[in-house]
Amino acid sequence: GSGDYASVADQFVKFYYDTFDTNRPALQSLYRPSSFLTFESSQSAGVADIHEKLTNLPFEKVKHNVTTTDAQPVSGGAGIIVLVTGSIQVDDQPKPLNFSQSFLLMNDGSWHVAHDVFKLIFPAE
Amino acid sequence: GSGDYASVADQFVKFYYDTFDTNRPALQSLYRPSSFLTFESSQSAGVADIHEKLTNLPFEKVKHNVTTTDAQPVSGGAGIIVLVTGSIQVDDQPKPLNFSQSFLLMNDGSWHVAHDVFKLIFPAE
Repeated sequence: GSGDYASVADQFVKFYYDTFDTNRPALQSLYRPSSFLTFESSQSAGVADIHEKLTNLPFEKVKHNVTTTDAQPVSGGAGIIVLVTGSIQVDDQPKPLNFSQSFLLMNDGSWHVAHDVFKLIFPAE
Repeated sequence: GSGDYASVADQFVKFYYDTFDTNRPALQSLYRPSSFLTFESSQSAGVADIHEKLTNLPFEKVKHNVTTTDAQPVSGGAGIIVLVTGSIQVDDQPKPLNFSQSFLLMNDGSWHVAHDVFKLIFPAE
């Protein structure tokens, strides 16, 4: 049905952040050799580079809270673009930080992350 | 060169928000019949619907301030995914609001907006 992309997006978002928060090395199975990750404006490409970036972030404990997930079907359903907003709490930081993350998911038999852009958001002055 | 997508993204972002803030009806030239816009979780599709949405937003004066623009080449350069963060000031609102906006730009002879997702960001508690 026409709502399937939204359901795939919701399931992906839940799986992605659960995995990020509990078993970060396992995220690498979601990427492909042609994938890109931009994390706080630093770009990585390919499974090995992305894995190294994600497993060497400067924090240990992390918890994401998703506030919104907006999805659109790309190329008649071959892909899904997703914009997530939420907050992230790391280590013993007293307050969560806002983040925004954009994904382009593609299906090559299974859904994977072709593009991933993560950015922290600091309050406007 | 390999940096061209970043330059296209920067030029697009400047043009998009300048046009949004000074001549909003002209944004419709950036969309195509297959384009999607999700504005604050409300989805529009196609040039006419997107035009109607953008020109009937509940504010008159608007000014975007872009804080960050992160781009990646899609499908070997046929497309560009862009994540923008920044703030938006509308009408006589005393304070700007944070926003995040994700674009998938495609080139059919000229660069256009295939996908557009806009979301306001409210500070984490």
